[in-house]
Amino acid sequence: MATKSIADWVTSLSYSSLPPEAIQAATRSFYNWAGCTVGGSNHPAATIAQKALSRFFGAPTSSLLGSQGTQVDAQHAAILNGIASHVHDYDDTHLETIIHPTGPVASALLSFAESLDRPVSGAEFITALVAGIEVECKCGLAVWPSHYDVGWHITSTTGSIGAAVAVSKLLNLTSEQTAHAIGIAATQVTGLREMFGSHTKSFHPGRAAQNGLMAAVLASEGYTSSLEALEAKRGWVNVVESHDQLDDMVASFGKENCWEIVKNSFKPFPCGIVVHPIIDGCISLHSELRQRGISYEQIEDVQVTVHHLVLELTGKTKPRDGLEAKFSVYHGGAVGLLFGKATPAQYEDAVVNEPNVLKVRAKLHATGDSSIRPDECHIVLKLREREVLEKHVDHAVGSVKSPMTDDQLTEKFLDQCISVVGLEKAKKASEWCWNLDTRNDIRDIKDIL
Amino acid sequence: MATKSIADWVTSLSYSSLPPEAIQAATRSFYNWAGCTVGGSNHPAATIAQKALSRFFGAPTSSLLGSQGTQVDAQHAAILNGIASHVHDYDDTHLETIIHPTGPVASALLSFAESLDRPVSGAEFITALVAGIEVECKCGLAVWPSHYDVGWHITSTTGSIGAAVAVSKLLNLTSEQTAHAIGIAATQVTGLREMFGSHTKSFHPGRAAQNGLMAAVLASEGYTSSLEALEAKRGWVNVVESHDQLDDMVASFGKENCWEIVKNSFKPFPCGIVVHPIIDGCISLHSELRQRGISYEQIEDVQVTVHHLVLELTGKTKPRDGLEAKFSVYHGGAVGLLFGKATPAQYEDAVVNEPNVLKVRAKLHATGDSSIRPDECHIVLKLREREVLEKHVDHAVGSVKSPMTDDQLTEKFLDQCISVVGLEKAKKASEWCWNLDTRNDIRDIKDIL
Repeated sequence: MATKSIADWVTSLSYSSLPPEAIQAATRSFYNWAGCTVGGSNHPAATIAQKALSRFFGAPTSSLLGSQGTQVDAQHAAILNGIASHVHDYDDTHLETIIHPTGPVASALLSFAESLDRPVSGAEFITALVAGIEVECKCGLAVWPSHYDVGWHITSTTGSIGAAVAVSKLLNLTSEQTAHAIGIAATQVTGLREMFGSHTKSFHPGRAAQNGLMAAVLASEGYTSSLEALEAKRGWVNVVESHDQLDDMVASFGKENCWEIVKNSFKPFPCGIVVHPIIDGCISLHSELRQRGISYEQIEDVQVTVHHLVLELTGKTKPRDGLEAKFSVYHGGAVGLLFGKATPAQYEDAVVNEPNVLKVRAKLHATGDSSIRPDECHIVLKLREREVLEKHVDHAVGSVKSPMTDDQLTEKFLDQCISVVGLEKAKKASEWCWNLDTRNDIRDIKDIL
Repeated sequence: MATKSIADWVTSLSYSSLPPEAIQAATRSFYNWAGCTVGGSNHPAATIAQKALSRFFGAPTSSLLGSQGTQVDAQHAAILNGIASHVHDYDDTHLETIIHPTGPVASALLSFAESLDRPVSGAEFITALVAGIEVECKCGLAVWPSHYDVGWHITSTTGSIGAAVAVSKLLNLTSEQTAHAIGIAATQVTGLREMFGSHTKSFHPGRAAQNGLMAAVLASEGYTSSLEALEAKRGWVNVVESHDQLDDMVASFGKENCWEIVKNSFKPFPCGIVVHPIIDGCISLHSELRQRGISYEQIEDVQVTVHHLVLELTGKTKPRDGLEAKFSVYHGGAVGLLFGKATPAQYEDAVVNEPNVLKVRAKLHATGDSSIRPDECHIVLKLREREVLEKHVDHAVGSVKSPMTDDQLTEKFLDQCISVVGLEKAKKASEWCWNLDTRNDIRDIKDIL
């Protein structure tokens, strides 16, 4: 009954039933997503896809964020915004599952909302966004961690389902139609981890957005699927990794302290989240060295102790370009030490191959330790004169225990948007997005971003 | 190196290197696919999808078969023709993997060929079709049977890859681009068996066609994926079911007696292929009863001994409609006994619920036997007067050992097309499709079907 129970929960969800912290989390999630999407819109993964798919574009109803007015059909807007939102690996993270939840859901939802011939209020939009993200993350919890371990990109495999739920909610589908939409989405299992480091990684949340959008639209016209799509013997959970957490997950919907969106976190650095503690620590060490007037050339050796997943996911010692550098704990640490920051600029191909960066990168060595949490790390830096500096990061900035403030999110948003749309437009967009909950019509975004 | 080896094989394949039996098999596969697509075009699974997705249609370049001239963009033509081709479960079968190979590949290939602004000869089309079907079936062999057992709809999971290969071939992609296309397709693992019996089953080959088409188009513009998408630790084969047949499969490309398309078979009955021996036997028994003037009302009991997969896949004793009846060995046997045939007409909802059909269906009992092959069955029919008739089917009609003749395929094609496009057009289309290899421009199909 899991699928039907979830569909019932989704159809009964209302804005007034959302706890304030879920509304706040949804606003922050949308805000961060919008900035990342604009910031990623001119990356080759987004522009190549736009060029390649342009021959198929339908009637323009939905905005490509950051394009200053370009509209395409809602399906292609969902894919292309979804790609852009994830391409810098700068989007949000539900840490318990390492799902990037907003990309698939918001990309589908905004694109579809814009295509409607009626106003969509901020409150309605937030309700659908929360519904989608809750279902996405609970499905992720039901199969975590074996689903990810075996090789699925959990962001998109669950993202298709979350996107279907969000669009179903916006379409006011019945519970049965919503269950069919979940089924049509669940059968499209998109995303292998093998693609990490290539354009296809960011294709995953884009395609997931479009999978879910299509599923909801088909279900709205009576297309049928299974009403037990998630829990059946050969349904989603059992096929994508056999687990028995589905019922627990279903029982937790809407319960106090069980809102997944509230656990959503935002990245201060545009790379795999497991690298963040190391960057955080290296930025602190950069400041210390700088204050004391010590050049990076004095660094002899840097030993970093990390959670074992850090090496598994980001063990690339010699990244060749910006995309690969996102999966290199060594690059993350090196730019932290060298520049005292890690923004998209430090992940440009030219920087990844800069001689100084290569020099510092080669001095970093990482060791896995099972007693270290994923948001923790310990760094021991040796200088040539045998002096040793140590830095322990307990909870990396951006983690649940040390969240980015609204001001930090604003700074990140403006940094991403200014180079694409200019300062004035970026500021206006920032103000518009922060006030999502009071917007009368979300479709106004076409004049904003 | 499997992915790259396959891509090399695909790029080096030429029409002149195809053995005559592969060309003949490709023609029969295309012919059967075209008839099934026209025949399925007015089924609700196809018409609902067309209506739901129409809001997204792009510039009309590609035909919806059977629609008498309606064109949509190539992506949507691929999905919609793919759905129609499979909805009656009447399409072809590669028996070693029970893949329905032509649906995903031909739906993508024809839709994309029509969208090109240059002629596409029948020979070029056949070469791309063979390339796609070979790769699709070899990938299926690499993961069969565990992949299917766990719950994947192997037609669409491999179909995405086959479609990507076929469109890549038509686009004359380099070997590296083709490998990227394979990767982008492989990451879209579409199709759970749980959806069998609903509209979503036929969505699978449709979506697979579009997955592959999109993958090839993205790769043609430089979109990157993994070059080890199939064989890597977290690549397709290992994630969708760990097996070690990939290298054997790669080594067999193009070898004598190793052309998968030659093993393709065609269905005389529009339902799960494992039911065919039972229908075949029941039709024979129908003739015998009729010749002797014995009414079906004299039937007291029918015991059928079958391969174990028959009960697993088609054990529905009380199907509620035509789609469910396709998964009922009891319905197949009953219409064979009652009407002496099993065409789409015997799978209409009204027939499935007809009192006489229900009566005969209730008299059938099936037992699995591990000594029986999938294309074999044994039937023991008891009459009220205690007389017993027996029928042993060694190789069901339509199996590799007892293939449908070209004349039988023509009869099936006309039966499917006449009610949709009329006799004259059906005959003209039949002649056009049979002579696929000598066509100067495949795009002419828009005036044919």
